[in-house]
Amino acid sequence: MSEHQNNHMDLVIVGSVGIDTIETPTARREDILGGSASYACAAASYFTNVGMVGVVGTDFPQSYMDLYRRFGIDLEGLQVAEGETFKWSGVYEKNMDNRRTLSTELNVFADFSPELPPSYRDVDFLFLANISPDLQLHVLDQVKKPKFVLLDTMDLWINVAKDTLTEVIGKVTMLTMNESEARHFTGEHGLIRAARALLDLGPKYVCIKKGEHGSIMFTGDDIFLMPAYPLEDVHDPTGAGDTFAGGFLGALARGGRVGKNDIRKAMTYGSVVASFGVEDFSLDRLAELTLPEIDARAAAFRKIGRVL
Amino acid sequence: MSEHQNNHMDLVIVGSVGIDTIETPTARREDILGGSASYACAAASYFTNVGMVGVVGTDFPQSYMDLYRRFGIDLEGLQVAEGETFKWSGVYEKNMDNRRTLSTELNVFADFSPELPPSYRDVDFLFLANISPDLQLHVLDQVKKPKFVLLDTMDLWINVAKDTLTEVIGKVTMLTMNESEARHFTGEHGLIRAARALLDLGPKYVCIKKGEHGSIMFTGDDIFLMPAYPLEDVHDPTGAGDTFAGGFLGALARGGRVGKNDIRKAMTYGSVVASFGVEDFSLDRLAELTLPEIDARAAAFRKIGRVL
Repeated sequence: MSEHQNNHMDLVIVGSVGIDTIETPTARREDILGGSASYACAAASYFTNVGMVGVVGTDFPQSYMDLYRRFGIDLEGLQVAEGETFKWSGVYEKNMDNRRTLSTELNVFADFSPELPPSYRDVDFLFLANISPDLQLHVLDQVKKPKFVLLDTMDLWINVAKDTLTEVIGKVTMLTMNESEARHFTGEHGLIRAARALLDLGPKYVCIKKGEHGSIMFTGDDIFLMPAYPLEDVHDPTGAGDTFAGGFLGALARGGRVGKNDIRKAMTYGSVVASFGVEDFSLDRLAELTLPEIDARAAAFRKIGRVL
Repeated sequence: MSEHQNNHMDLVIVGSVGIDTIETPTARREDILGGSASYACAAASYFTNVGMVGVVGTDFPQSYMDLYRRFGIDLEGLQVAEGETFKWSGVYEKNMDNRRTLSTELNVFADFSPELPPSYRDVDFLFLANISPDLQLHVLDQVKKPKFVLLDTMDLWINVAKDTLTEVIGKVTMLTMNESEARHFTGEHGLIRAARALLDLGPKYVCIKKGEHGSIMFTGDDIFLMPAYPLEDVHDPTGAGDTFAGGFLGALARGGRVGKNDIRKAMTYGSVVASFGVEDFSLDRLAELTLPEIDARAAAFRKIGRVL
């Protein structure tokens, strides 16, 4: 993490902040810090200054606020509302192959309306993490002229708000969906066809995430295969997609350019930070991470991931 | 395919020759040419001279023999035995994600004993495709001093002949297994641990195949991620692993060197030939394929598969 003194935000991330209880085949952790905005902001903080837009309840532990600050995350856009913080609990089944939600308590997240502080509105890079498409539209209405907007979503919104989601997709630079979401949304099983159908809705880039198998990035005339960094031990895959997105956008914002190769390079950083993130629960590994560690793993990744 | 006049074999492939009946969600083909040796030899024939060791029955169609010859495959090691050729039928379920065997008739394959003609015994490159470990040992006893031996197997042999299979693994240069076989054999779910357990048995290289997600190559001190070439339409995935192996070994034998980068480059060719192979049933697409098409797709693959 780095300390940024600049008040101008290079990257703004809108998403959830949650208190998670997670069980894996080998461990269980209660009331740990989670949420898409937490993972994405922490990952981005290694590369650029980043502002978080979200909501917590009055029960939100001070120690987690302190952790955000240690990452250097700007918290002007983080609302504190009367009530309890969003809570989620889930269990990873044998071999981490499947995740089951045990409970979801929206709490203050139910009435969340993301409001961007004035200093966030001229931001260049924006991540609309997984929240309702209505709220994502509301955020887009508040930003002036972003250079690059990344959108994430989930099956729920495809089921209950497909029209609004389609409208949001038409307004962003890049969309990420996992394989099953892309198939569900488009009705196409083949990923190339599914990606093409999504590109037809407007975004310049579509990134299909395949979990432990990496991802594939599609643009009008090109494809880019992004393997996943191979890991011996995955302790908690929660937030991996958001960590990837945050690291990706942070690295992109650091360089400021959004050409195809800039995007490919930034994806390497997103993958690398995500590979560290899943080595421990919550933000525990990210809180210990250093930029030299990131650069060393990125260099190793380029070496083992190069098609000769 | 190329015409090789040289009588010395650079590559020998031992495996099955079969007559397949295959059903996919969109098509059905009866009595088409199949078997691991067919796919692997056809793929290898683009790069080097290759001899096939296998067995067919007296019912084996002359047109399939002619096709082998058009590929330039040397057939001195192909036995013709009294009786019917090995027959297999299977059906690919929705989205090609799962394959179910409908029937297997071993026929002349039941009594197959692979015998290498004298001109095959000083071969440098050898592929032991999926046959019983006993027969694989019998082949190894007949070769003098091969430079590179690639071994494939299947779940059946892990279940019924694990000790003999372990002995064979200890005698080869490189082992390929798919994810589930590697987990089944080693009892390790994580692929890095599984690969390490397999490397401990003796081979210098272990390649874990992940189907549409590509493969990962492991050696003592290195890993190499090999994505799969992204395809719009897969018409018949039968034989993809054998096509990969044949193309890989053919490309390796063409260069003659077996350094780490030679192996990585050869894997690109194996992947590319396999990506063509699955575009049609049986050897239909391979029979039309040209070396310039292979080279063009390999160049595209290097471009889209490079971690920046």
